Amino acid sequence: MNRLVHILMSPPCRMARLMLGEKRLPFAAQIADDPLRHLPVLLDEDGTAVTGIWAVTDRLETEHPDNPLVPEDAGERAEVLRLLDWTMTHFHDEVTRRIVFEKAAQAHTGSPMRRPPNMETVRSGRVALHDFLKALAPLPEERGFLACRELTLADLALAAHMSALDYYGEVPWTDIPAIAEWYTRLKSRPSFRPLLADRVPGQPPVLHYAELDF
Amino acid sequence: MNRLVHILMSPPCRMARLMLGEKRLPFAAQIADDPLRHLPVLLDEDGTAVTGIWAVTDRLETEHPDNPLVPEDAGERAEVLRLLDWTMTHFHDEVTRRIVFEKAAQAHTGSPMRRPPNMETVRSGRVALHDFLKALAPLPEERGFLACRELTLADLALAAHMSALDYYGEVPWTDIPAIAEWYTRLKSRPSFRPLLADRVPGQPPVLHYAELDF
Repeated sequence: MNRLVHILMSPPCRMARLMLGEKRLPFAAQIADDPLRHLPVLLDEDGTAVTGIWAVTDRLETEHPDNPLVPEDAGERAEVLRLLDWTMTHFHDEVTRRIVFEKAAQAHTGSPMRRPPNMETVRSGRVALHDFLKALAPLPEERGFLACRELTLADLALAAHMSALDYYGEVPWTDIPAIAEWYTRLKSRPSFRPLLADRVPGQPPVLHYAELDF
Repeated sequence: MNRLVHILMSPPCRMARLMLGEKRLPFAAQIADDPLRHLPVLLDEDGTAVTGIWAVTDRLETEHPDNPLVPEDAGERAEVLRLLDWTMTHFHDEVTRRIVFEKAAQAHTGSPMRRPPNMETVRSGRVALHDFLKALAPLPEERGFLACRELTLADLALAAHMSALDYYGEVPWTDIPAIAEWYTRLKSRPSFRPLLADRVPGQPPVLHYAELDF
């Protein structure tokens, strides 16, 4: 069986767990001893290590082309990878870093900065989150999923971030019903179950975190 | 001819310029009016836009498989993508953000934070840079290039960051001769020429920036 070395509140780690779930590949999840190392690490049955979300994505799409998470069509591919890259850079820097990385301990995020939470930073992240979700809302309404009619890496990347934000009760769901509807569909998938069982020691999730109708 | 919308000191933009050069694809480079937008953007001759380094990489590797920048071999692929991801996340956060993003204006980096340079942050970036380069030094010595015997995306990603750091005279070349030797080889390639001609208004590069023997 594959093993995945991860930490709980790191978006690329959460995304790797969702990808393995969508590919229906059973795996043993193991929390990293050193949260500052390069994660996630996927270990094959023969012990080969594949490190980082770019390499994990490439390996899983190449070796398990059933249930593809990147479409064949060039235009759709570009759109999936645009949203994936944007989520992992702009959304990460302006929202997740400013909220989740302030609220959760370094052991669960892998953030290189260790210092007390700064509420001004959290507030600036909330403003950016609200603006970004408003901008994203038309996508699942028009397309079905974020990039196209099918579930893709774009959905899993954003869901990885959103689920970490939701754990801390930071998503203004009622303001953005189209995104709430999209997230409810994601959350109902079997691949999501392990994430909904996450518990950060000393920081229980908000009550609705694991509920499928909220 | 392709067009590339970019900004001067953004590592993914610099990497896209190097990739186009290595693929021998002529392109017109155009500085983005809005440095905060998602960059780089590659515009085909028919006006199709491909946005972000992940999508640009996928498009160029798919449509221009000559001079491949990701090897076929699964183990080498994983190593290339591990180094690429590490450079774009860990190295970026701990070095480039702390040095280049402090020294260059937002118009040239696209950093979401706009505030005066913090010399303590720059100093912490210099410590991380020194440690990272010491750790990387054995790779080109043992392998030829960073990930394997051939030039790959791993080299272009690190060179994109290193060239921005070098512009500001921030690389301790004499301390890490193996990395200096690797960088001199990269810098001598035709793909590097446009980067060596970069000039940030009001901030000329250090004298050795464009010299091939330094």
